[in-house]
Amino acid sequence: MESKNDLSQSVLDRAGRVRLLLMDCDGVLTDGRLYFTADGEEMKVFNVRDGQGLASWHAAGFESGIVSGRGGREIIMKRAIELGVKYTHTGSKNKVADVLEIFGEAGVDKDEVAFMGDDLGDLEAMKLVGFPVAVGDAIGEVRAAAAYITTRKGGRGAIREVTDLLLSLKSR
Amino acid sequence: MESKNDLSQSVLDRAGRVRLLLMDCDGVLTDGRLYFTADGEEMKVFNVRDGQGLASWHAAGFESGIVSGRGGREIIMKRAIELGVKYTHTGSKNKVADVLEIFGEAGVDKDEVAFMGDDLGDLEAMKLVGFPVAVGDAIGEVRAAAAYITTRKGGRGAIREVTDLLLSLKSR
Amino acid sequence: MESKNDLSQSVLDRAGRVRLLLMDCDGVLTDGRLYFTADGEEMKVFNVRDGQGLASWHAAGFESGIVSGRGGREIIMKRAIELGVKYTHTGSKNKVADVLEIFGEAGVDKDEVAFMGDDLGDLEAMKLVGFPVAVGDAIGEVRAAAAYITTRKGGRGAIREVTDLLLSLKSR
Amino acid sequence: MESKNDLSQSVLDRAGRVRLLLMDCDGVLTDGRLYFTADGEEMKVFNVRDGQGLASWHAAGFESGIVSGRGGREIIMKRAIELGVKYTHTGSKNKVADVLEIFGEAGVDKDEVAFMGDDLGDLEAMKLVGFPVAVGDAIGEVRAAAAYITTRKGGRGAIREVTDLLLSLKSR
Repeated sequence: MESKNDLSQSVLDRAGRVRLLLMDCDGVLTDGRLYFTADGEEMKVFNVRDGQGLASWHAAGFESGIVSGRGGREIIMKRAIELGVKYTHTGSKNKVADVLEIFGEAGVDKDEVAFMGDDLGDLEAMKLVGFPVAVGDAIGEVRAAAAYITTRKGGRGAIREVTDLLLSLKSR
Repeated sequence: MESKNDLSQSVLDRAGRVRLLLMDCDGVLTDGRLYFTADGEEMKVFNVRDGQGLASWHAAGFESGIVSGRGGREIIMKRAIELGVKYTHTGSKNKVADVLEIFGEAGVDKDEVAFMGDDLGDLEAMKLVGFPVAVGDAIGEVRAAAAYITTRKGGRGAIREVTDLLLSLKSR
Repeated sequence: MESKNDLSQSVLDRAGRVRLLLMDCDGVLTDGRLYFTADGEEMKVFNVRDGQGLASWHAAGFESGIVSGRGGREIIMKRAIELGVKYTHTGSKNKVADVLEIFGEAGVDKDEVAFMGDDLGDLEAMKLVGFPVAVGDAIGEVRAAAAYITTRKGGRGAIREVTDLLLSLKSR
Repeated sequence: MESKNDLSQSVLDRAGRVRLLLMDCDGVLTDGRLYFTADGEEMKVFNVRDGQGLASWHAAGFESGIVSGRGGREIIMKRAIELGVKYTHTGSKNKVADVLEIFGEAGVDKDEVAFMGDDLGDLEAMKLVGFPVAVGDAIGEVRAAAAYITTRKGGRGAIREVTDLLLSLKSR
């Protein structure tokens, strides 16, 4: 657990190997607000600068994926398609199985994967990957399990902070 | 009225007996914003980490309920069903009667009930229960009537703070 | 221009005479966010505790009104009806004429009226009333024209702050 | 890069020549939040006081335009028409070409144009104009390319700050 401006060589090494960036949706890609109408969950709110970060990540030849334990698949897919997110698992009852399945599809080793989470449902998935990341407003258990904690909160630039970090290590 | 990190034995005793967590909706489960379209109230915005808190509370074998003086029943029910909230009273003209009715249905004593509120309409209901809680941005009268005031605001983690507190006392 | 906790007798006298509370909508009843869909302005976001303040004001026998220079009449009417706001002028091209018309309908003297504003379009209307109020985030010209500036921002409790102040003076 | 209250004569000279104010949409006219439903991007959230600033700018005889790299044309057009924004390019694949096209249509010299941006996609367009502006929460590269950085964030008054500045220089 170090601040962005004081990253140990160990953290830089782990971050430098990442080729696949996985993330939870609510509280990570969004600020955790759930917009419900009488028809159920109607809307999710994403961040334009997070999106630019993912676009830059994909443009550099790397992949990303969303693993969400909740619903709203149609909403998430609309944003995922706009950004070129390759793997999208929603309504996940078992994030560990879903993450392992993505490992296989992507042909990556665990050391090449980052997982960004904010709450209890992300803990086991974070333990599977080489570079587990907590958003700045994650709960204590998630922060404790992270190799890196963003200074930005979920939905407020946390993803951009990570793509900027990962891409800066690629160009070294 | 004590801060979370300096709870008296009396507060811990009262909190430790809670088996049923009741709460107002607007300003407690939400941050108090009311989203209106030309058709009326269209949307309510909940918090994903509050939801995880309620899910953990239910998973541990305890119950919860929502008592709201306003409308929007269809919206609230969608979220309540997702989370497993058992009691849902909306458009309540008399929160005292509604809370007493829930006492009967749940078969609990007043000492086993918490009520979380933010504004004038919650005051009488809070006086009925053993553990009255005010969200961090509640009005002065509600804060004065509370045994515990959350550090988090309504819709911004106040419910999670309370479920974390209550569950920590169960596992002692 | 005094802070809430340091009101001069002159301000208290002016506030004490108010029987009719008029206000702009966007930036006063709301935080100034305008929610547009492809069909135009779809949604306005109000505050539940502001609403309780207006409900208390009406319950005490006083009246209120909304004078907005923009559209969204159907949205505003839905909230106005829920709260019992008596006068609602939207799409106003001349707030002065609208306010004077309300004076006539309500049978009040200018000294008995408050007007809450945030921006240029409210300035002339504020000059017509005995108790002009600026929300905490109003522009400089509006603040300069106000007898009272709320500590709360528009859509974040500014109206509740004023109804609490006005009602506290009634009960003295 | 100077603060608003400490503008050099050089910045004032550049600002004083502006007759056409161009801007990105997401993150500049909005706070960067993207509201998605199952049907795709459903909503954009604008700011009422930014709108008053653009209305004042147009009333003084000057023009404005929006150049966005993303979609949502129907939403943007609804707001642009309400405010009298003359030029609207959405889904822009080449902001430089779009800005140059607007130069031609408007019959202005580059020294007479401002461009407000927040992220990578705005950098080249900012280099084309005499008065490049970064919103307060723009990324570092955009801030570095700006002649002026607003104290307000995108969607939270950044545009109003610029129209107030530009109009104050016209009336000198």
